Amino acid sequence: MDIEQFRKAGYQAIDRICDYYYSLHERPVIAQVKPGYLRRALPSSAPEKGEDFQHVADDYQRLILPGLTHWQHPSFFAYFPTACTFEGLLADLYSSSTCNPGFNWLSSPACTELEAVMMDWAAQLLGLSSAFFNSSGIGGGVIMTTASDSALTAVVAARSLYLRRHPETRHEDLVIYTTSQTHSLGAKAGLVLGLSTRALEVTADDNFGLRGETLRHAFLEDKKDGKKPFVLIATVGTTSSGAIDYLPEIEVVVRDHPSLWVHIDAAWAGMSFSCPEYREMGYLDSINNFAHSFCTNFHKWGLTNFDASSLWIRDRKSLTDALDSTPEYLRTKQGDEGTVIDYRNWHLGLGRRFRSLKIWFVFRSFGVQGIQKYIRRTIELNNKFASMIRSSSQFALVTPPSYALSVFRLEPKGIEQSNVESLNNLNRLFYERISARSDILLTRTELNGIFCIRFAVGAARTDETHIQRAFDLLCTEAESAIRTFENV
Amino acid sequence: MDIEQFRKAGYQAIDRICDYYYSLHERPVIAQVKPGYLRRALPSSAPEKGEDFQHVADDYQRLILPGLTHWQHPSFFAYFPTACTFEGLLADLYSSSTCNPGFNWLSSPACTELEAVMMDWAAQLLGLSSAFFNSSGIGGGVIMTTASDSALTAVVAARSLYLRRHPETRHEDLVIYTTSQTHSLGAKAGLVLGLSTRALEVTADDNFGLRGETLRHAFLEDKKDGKKPFVLIATVGTTSSGAIDYLPEIEVVVRDHPSLWVHIDAAWAGMSFSCPEYREMGYLDSINNFAHSFCTNFHKWGLTNFDASSLWIRDRKSLTDALDSTPEYLRTKQGDEGTVIDYRNWHLGLGRRFRSLKIWFVFRSFGVQGIQKYIRRTIELNNKFASMIRSSSQFALVTPPSYALSVFRLEPKGIEQSNVESLNNLNRLFYERISARSDILLTRTELNGIFCIRFAVGAARTDETHIQRAFDLLCTEAESAIRTFENV
Repeated sequence: MDIEQFRKAGYQAIDRICDYYYSLHERPVIAQVKPGYLRRALPSSAPEKGEDFQHVADDYQRLILPGLTHWQHPSFFAYFPTACTFEGLLADLYSSSTCNPGFNWLSSPACTELEAVMMDWAAQLLGLSSAFFNSSGIGGGVIMTTASDSALTAVVAARSLYLRRHPETRHEDLVIYTTSQTHSLGAKAGLVLGLSTRALEVTADDNFGLRGETLRHAFLEDKKDGKKPFVLIATVGTTSSGAIDYLPEIEVVVRDHPSLWVHIDAAWAGMSFSCPEYREMGYLDSINNFAHSFCTNFHKWGLTNFDASSLWIRDRKSLTDALDSTPEYLRTKQGDEGTVIDYRNWHLGLGRRFRSLKIWFVFRSFGVQGIQKYIRRTIELNNKFASMIRSSSQFALVTPPSYALSVFRLEPKGIEQSNVESLNNLNRLFYERISARSDILLTRTELNGIFCIRFAVGAARTDETHIQRAFDLLCTEAESAIRTFENV
Repeated sequence: MDIEQFRKAGYQAIDRICDYYYSLHERPVIAQVKPGYLRRALPSSAPEKGEDFQHVADDYQRLILPGLTHWQHPSFFAYFPTACTFEGLLADLYSSSTCNPGFNWLSSPACTELEAVMMDWAAQLLGLSSAFFNSSGIGGGVIMTTASDSALTAVVAARSLYLRRHPETRHEDLVIYTTSQTHSLGAKAGLVLGLSTRALEVTADDNFGLRGETLRHAFLEDKKDGKKPFVLIATVGTTSSGAIDYLPEIEVVVRDHPSLWVHIDAAWAGMSFSCPEYREMGYLDSINNFAHSFCTNFHKWGLTNFDASSLWIRDRKSLTDALDSTPEYLRTKQGDEGTVIDYRNWHLGLGRRFRSLKIWFVFRSFGVQGIQKYIRRTIELNNKFASMIRSSSQFALVTPPSYALSVFRLEPKGIEQSNVESLNNLNRLFYERISARSDILLTRTELNGIFCIRFAVGAARTDETHIQRAFDLLCTEAESAIRTFENV
């Protein structure tokens, strides 16, 4: 394809993306395809000769689009949103066009420098302490792929620091602390690193947040057994229910355990800190006081296209001490002089995409106020949904609404409420009915044995009408589920 | 930005990318900026209010483009190429526009299914055994971010398998085997996982490839000391010099060590297997016979935009046994039934970009023959360069040319050849002169104490004229360097 052919195909792509967004609300939220649909539709091997690009572009429309689940659909309430924007999309287009693996400063200065500045802008947006700014020269921020990547990197830095301080430690004594509500990224870090993970219990009474006392007790218990707790992954806004660990209490406990690294996973909820009124709820002061590392994903609730997970660290040396390996073929004058950041020593991989560009485009186009407006609007929409649930006689919230997430279930009058399994079965039936629909998407979870349904607001195009329609539709399916349940 | 504003900004982006490619050959290959240039040019925090997008787009041209190193420049001969194409770029554009983190089948069936099929097309292109095909149901392929990511994942799977078979093993006894020429991804996997790495010695006489005898000897030595070698990272085409480990010899040695996992890192050179005449040179038969995992990067020499590293594995269960953690909120009907691949259990992270789309676009547009033609052309261009070096009286190849890479240095008549340090100093001076130029980019390396210069061909726009110009320019700089050197 020469440059003029690219211009033609590029215009067409832009036009088709416009068509996609004009028609998005009419599409099924979830792909209406069966496992194996695409393998059956495609030849079993690559073509021998190249084909006209128009065929390829048309096949994208014909074969791929119907197989996508539309995360930008205004009735997408599943998982957490990945709110993408045209501004982020355009940045990704520019970034792909110059295609470089910016692993050190020299391999593309703009990539490194923009990332360093954007992470400082973002830290200010969220109200993070200046200790986390790149401009501090001590702490700093870096863009990772996902929150799992950020957490894994933090755990590696924590382990490396702990072992430097306590070189006699046996590998099998090291323990990663999480709670039973921590995202699976905690368990996965344990699997990847071959380390023990202890998931501390949390209760419904505490809204599934970790208490200081639980942590203190576990420390005593484990240390008595010769175990070495070296990192705690605490969460602000768990995936299941938006739970928030009690960071001020944890801060007090941790004072007695100076070798413990605290990583804060606020993958989703961290963006709420952009609005000052939500800083207390997520314990931003504690984070600023004592967290060693903090993660939030711009690609979740930050209007930025996937992937863009941001990780801040109080001491960048703990990353580079753990991860720096510089062979001759990667040495550069600027790196040797120490005048630049070589981000490859801040993460597990080597090459990296130019992700800061989309954060820059979003910041410039929306401004701090535009981002705040979006966050506030999605929380308000969820509050609307939560009050509809509250005032209904069929439904009940399982936990208080958290930011833009509600966790609820069917608890209809006339059905024995004390029989947990029976109610769970009803709710499974209800969820099956919702899942069979193509015009809305919600996901399920379980909280200490209770089967629940999650409703997460955040797609950039969701407005009040979609919330109302979602609620109406849930009422209809609830009635059918209850009828079926009563007839069984 | 609404849909029509996006159309306008999108057309403009396409036009500007066209301008970029029309002017690419006139730009400096390497950014002409000083450390800190961008921080000085940008405000210290994000704007309060959103700005007109035109300002943002214009600032990209004004501030970012001059700070990029142009990896697609026809005179870019540094590192390894990242040959990107318009077809890959368009695929990335479509993929960003629907923005989803496809971590399981349900979250976007097309993403999972296209990846599974593309990895089978790619395996056939390269002549990999059908044991590695996803259609085998046992082995399979997955797209990772980088070769470091692929290698780290393979090492995690290897360690997990070894420990299941030998549960009494002490962590500190586990050893990752590499050679002194293995990419830093080997050392980094050791750092990340907190495992010992042993870099085996290789010699210039063996063109820096690992011999079977060296491996056998190391095994005996280490096992005698109670060490547990559990994985070998062997390389086809090292970064320094394109060295190839002697896989048929290694195959024989490994027969006596059935617990050893062999990962083949062919990040760059693996694409050569698309041409049948290069399969013997890279020992494809051995790889098919005995490798547990194999990696090559489509984003290096495969015409596909960064990032797209492909990892094949002989037994997918070794990945999922090591990495599967499925909390309730990630469970799906299709996943529970086992009828689909949930790729999140094949790698370290959770969310993942829709990378297979660009591989599909490239396959369809170029065809097998188009990819072969590109590979053959770049090797031929490098052969041209190598013969110019050979016939020159100033230069010498340090190792035989490997695929599309030449490693050479100055060895002018009249300068004492036996004094290694003196020649190294001359070459450092020479390399400094080359590095100071903006119209070409090469990188350096060191081979057993010898300072050398790498010349890697592969940018999609490089042709014979660029090779000739590069050689002429090297001759000019060589003369100046020799003059300076003699006058010191």
